[in-house]
Amino acid sequence: MNEVKVILFGLGAMGSHIAKFVLKKKGLKVVGALEIAKEKVGKDLGEVLGIEKHLGIQVIDDPNTLFFKVKSDIVIHAMGFYLTQVYPQIIKCVKAGINVVSTCEELSYPYYKFPKLAFELDKLAKENGVTILGTGINPGYLMDTLPIALTGPCINVKSIKVTRMMFSGNRRNSYQKKIGTGLTTKVFNQMIKDGKMTGHVGLVESICMIASSLGWKLSDIVELPPKPVITEKETKTTYTTIKSHHVVGLKSVAYGIKNGEKVITLQFVSHANVKKPYDSVTIEGTPTIHERIEGGIHGDLGTVAMVINSIPKVIKAKPGLVTMKDLPIPSAVAEDIRISME
Amino acid sequence: MNEVKVILFGLGAMGSHIAKFVLKKKGLKVVGALEIAKEKVGKDLGEVLGIEKHLGIQVIDDPNTLFFKVKSDIVIHAMGFYLTQVYPQIIKCVKAGINVVSTCEELSYPYYKFPKLAFELDKLAKENGVTILGTGINPGYLMDTLPIALTGPCINVKSIKVTRMMFSGNRRNSYQKKIGTGLTTKVFNQMIKDGKMTGHVGLVESICMIASSLGWKLSDIVELPPKPVITEKETKTTYTTIKSHHVVGLKSVAYGIKNGEKVITLQFVSHANVKKPYDSVTIEGTPTIHERIEGGIHGDLGTVAMVINSIPKVIKAKPGLVTMKDLPIPSAVAEDIRISME
Repeated sequence: MNEVKVILFGLGAMGSHIAKFVLKKKGLKVVGALEIAKEKVGKDLGEVLGIEKHLGIQVIDDPNTLFFKVKSDIVIHAMGFYLTQVYPQIIKCVKAGINVVSTCEELSYPYYKFPKLAFELDKLAKENGVTILGTGINPGYLMDTLPIALTGPCINVKSIKVTRMMFSGNRRNSYQKKIGTGLTTKVFNQMIKDGKMTGHVGLVESICMIASSLGWKLSDIVELPPKPVITEKETKTTYTTIKSHHVVGLKSVAYGIKNGEKVITLQFVSHANVKKPYDSVTIEGTPTIHERIEGGIHGDLGTVAMVINSIPKVIKAKPGLVTMKDLPIPSAVAEDIRISME
Repeated sequence: MNEVKVILFGLGAMGSHIAKFVLKKKGLKVVGALEIAKEKVGKDLGEVLGIEKHLGIQVIDDPNTLFFKVKSDIVIHAMGFYLTQVYPQIIKCVKAGINVVSTCEELSYPYYKFPKLAFELDKLAKENGVTILGTGINPGYLMDTLPIALTGPCINVKSIKVTRMMFSGNRRNSYQKKIGTGLTTKVFNQMIKDGKMTGHVGLVESICMIASSLGWKLSDIVELPPKPVITEKETKTTYTTIKSHHVVGLKSVAYGIKNGEKVITLQFVSHANVKKPYDSVTIEGTPTIHERIEGGIHGDLGTVAMVINSIPKVIKAKPGLVTMKDLPIPSAVAEDIRISME
């Protein structure tokens, strides 16, 4: 079997991180790289990634030109949270007849916020015989796929609570910035209010995926604005030094409501003072399940893995827009990816 | 949408347990019941289940007669561990054009022990346009599906260790008997040696499912004979009172070996002196994952749930023999099962 030919679409913080692992993965072959940031366009991929190797792949900014020149099996798309922003890019891949796995948070379960776009994407994917998936560690796994899979042995489910308690102090700078690290409370709240900072994107998507899997019709989904977490003493991270009484990170909570009850509670906590990170899922039902991953799962590594591990499943899936709940159970590609393609 | 019509095939301990929940599940309709035990044949299903209700469904012993008279969407098959024993029964369902979800342990991943039977089942299922699945809590979930799903966020995996630490003292009598509860060590070991007691069936199937999901080619699979766990003091269970120095349960271990390394270790411990039951998965890799379900998952309830929750996925799957790793992620049917059929 031939190597799986990959085009990298997006070489920002997450895209570059994924790219380095893709280059190392047996059975994957990078055949092209797309990026819109002017300082990266025209350079060799190796240079853009900061690795000591000329890869012979020039980063270009026009998808159609690349798709015309180079044949590929899948695009790894890492261009941001918002579906309305990245939608035109995904369309181009689909129209070129290429499968897409994207880190776009809102694509992980787009049917609630963007029913029309989701319908269009599905239709277009089917017309072009390709599959589209949005995935990542969260949304995509820890607060949706895994909790859903944990309801498998339940005869009934009353409620689900998922908590992600993350240590942020060693994450990439763009991530620490995204959660307000180092700001004052005032600036934090103002930036949230002005939409200049969003905190974590994906809780609503995760809630909808869980509800859909279980057959729950929710009456409401409530996402509270992220709250700053304040440090009492100066805290050092890989990104910055946070003064006392400044923001070390944030806490976000969202609920899925059914018959007036909070049947789904997602709690996302990420800051530089978390001493014991964990990911936990509690399912109240028959039976009740208390599940916990001690130490949690590192977000960036997890997202890289979710993207790469999804490639065989996306290529093998029937055409259309799919979500993690539609695909076979996630699994690591532990060997050459071609073995997982069989 | 019409109710999903179910035929119950097998009304032993597990089959009866499943039956009671099937009868209560919205959207499912029991349309027939099969059993070979003479004392049950000819009686009303309600009477056989020991519930205070005449159900108007006579238990019969001939599948073909029932399949000719009654149309159904799926057979819930609970007739034992061994594929060679239940194979003729499953064939009859398939030839009658009915989907099958079975608790048969060896059917959960039959490709290793029974490649020829698995091929035949798959072929026959495809010819008849139906889907066959073997599932349950274990094999089917705790020592295969869940550990596999936990590798999803891993870039690489060095080894997987799964431990099921179960309290057996409140399980159904047939289960407690199966694990040697109350025997002397001598009788326990003799019964194991003579094949009169098997302990847990499914470790080999779980190992093969994990290896296949990850793309590992194992050089060997080693299943050690179950070892008795001895109590120091008298122990009471719902089944019996165990004298001191007698068997309270057992411990089974199996390994999947690759390049001389134990890459998969499954440890199944079940006895009446377990104080803190749990199910745990440790994945050594990038990242390493330590997952734990405190209190464990009750085996009988879990198996009932896995069977019922699989029904929509089996009916919607494309025809053939499938295993849990081929289906979409497991999920509870929290409402009327017809919602999950949409």
